[in-house]
Amino acid sequence: MKNQSSIDNQQSTMPKILLCNDDGIHAPGISILHRAVSDLGELRVVAPDVERSAAGHAITLSEPIKSTPVEKDGVFFGDAIGGTPADCVKLAVCALMKEEPPDLVLSGINLGSNTGISVIYSGTVSAASEGTVLGIPSVAFSLCTYVDPEWEMAERIVKELAQKIIETPPPKGVLLNVNIPNLPYEELKGIKVTRMGRSRFIEKFHKRLDPRGRTYYWLDGELEVHDDGDDIDIHAVRDGYVSITPIQLDLTAYDHLKSFQGLESNFVAV
Amino acid sequence: MKNQSSIDNQQSTMPKILLCNDDGIHAPGISILHRAVSDLGELRVVAPDVERSAAGHAITLSEPIKSTPVEKDGVFFGDAIGGTPADCVKLAVCALMKEEPPDLVLSGINLGSNTGISVIYSGTVSAASEGTVLGIPSVAFSLCTYVDPEWEMAERIVKELAQKIIETPPPKGVLLNVNIPNLPYEELKGIKVTRMGRSRFIEKFHKRLDPRGRTYYWLDGELEVHDDGDDIDIHAVRDGYVSITPIQLDLTAYDHLKSFQGLESNFVAV
Repeated sequence: MKNQSSIDNQQSTMPKILLCNDDGIHAPGISILHRAVSDLGELRVVAPDVERSAAGHAITLSEPIKSTPVEKDGVFFGDAIGGTPADCVKLAVCALMKEEPPDLVLSGINLGSNTGISVIYSGTVSAASEGTVLGIPSVAFSLCTYVDPEWEMAERIVKELAQKIIETPPPKGVLLNVNIPNLPYEELKGIKVTRMGRSRFIEKFHKRLDPRGRTYYWLDGELEVHDDGDDIDIHAVRDGYVSITPIQLDLTAYDHLKSFQGLESNFVAV
Repeated sequence: MKNQSSIDNQQSTMPKILLCNDDGIHAPGISILHRAVSDLGELRVVAPDVERSAAGHAITLSEPIKSTPVEKDGVFFGDAIGGTPADCVKLAVCALMKEEPPDLVLSGINLGSNTGISVIYSGTVSAASEGTVLGIPSVAFSLCTYVDPEWEMAERIVKELAQKIIETPPPKGVLLNVNIPNLPYEELKGIKVTRMGRSRFIEKFHKRLDPRGRTYYWLDGELEVHDDGDDIDIHAVRDGYVSITPIQLDLTAYDHLKSFQGLESNFVAV
């Protein structure tokens, strides 16, 4: 039984699912995502032509955006876009799929976690955010490792969650940020709804000289957690749970609106 | 009389102020910002070498970041960085100014408004967000026009607000997003504390062929407001008020945490 807010439309046709990522169309994660949801809808892949990690919510305004068809295993896989993850979703929804816009945007599967403050830098999350801005239910998936990814487990989790999300999509304006610990399926503890943990990167810039003697810097950093909560994304993953954080895009600090009223004034016409 | 939370330190030395933007170090807006606050502290300019509008919160991880000194009117003005606005603030705080980190980060003055959903795409705001992430009081300034900027008015407003903010900085984790209507000073109605208006861009992609016959797209769009509130940034500016929106970086959709509990589960060890 499907509930009323199910994505699947009344004619019982398959939902149209747009797939994007920030590791680029050639990354393994988007192929795994494709395989995970291939039975669940009509898929369309529109993803960056190269890696665009940490692209944040950048969009391309001052340059043209090129689109090139890409094959995998000899068949058309999707469109490689010379732009950011947010560009891809905008272009897909507003141009490439304009006649039949997607019912769902799935982003990932990213290699590396997008928990805590990483969320604001993440291109994976920003693809899903753009879907949300455009009014389409959207989900970002990250697998929390850079080495030895447990793709089989990730594929299974993504499939199970995508099925549930198609049945009961998130409300307007809210996207889901899913972080999956890198464990064999049978070692996972479960699934937890979490909040974004308070954290920051402790940055380290490596200062070096290029072959012509000019200074350059290379950014390196580690996430430092400033949050004891059991209910945060970072700790859920650490403890072996798949973390699902509902994310919204209104950044207003509502709790602080009143405290700034001292800055308000009315100018008197002279 | 300065209050206890004043930025100025106990030795009564001038506060150290980091200036950044997303229009690039050569843009007029950052020179106006520099002039506006030159009496208020020790200034240090670290800004992108070229325009980085709509850079969102992108950071540069996979490439080195170059820093080049820039003169204006024959004197050292600041460091031009081959990176995004967020890179500039990270590099300034964690490397260039590491020994004496800034007490305040000011970003702008951007040409063009950063109201409503534009906030999530804005490089101007992201420079201030990065300051906030790093624990430094931060403010983004935008002048809401692309033509005939009223720089004299903007300089005066920025100076007045910066003075107040140095006396009473925003609390940890909150930055201020200031949007200034493009009017002569005497026509301004006043200053309002606002929330981020619900809005989206109605995108239009121009589809064209390059000289070699390959398709490219060029993004164009207009902000569409979905919010009747008198208390939003967009309407404050429209009505002739300087808009100040307190912004926070925890994106958790707290109101929706409970509604997703149906997705939670505990896996039973086999």
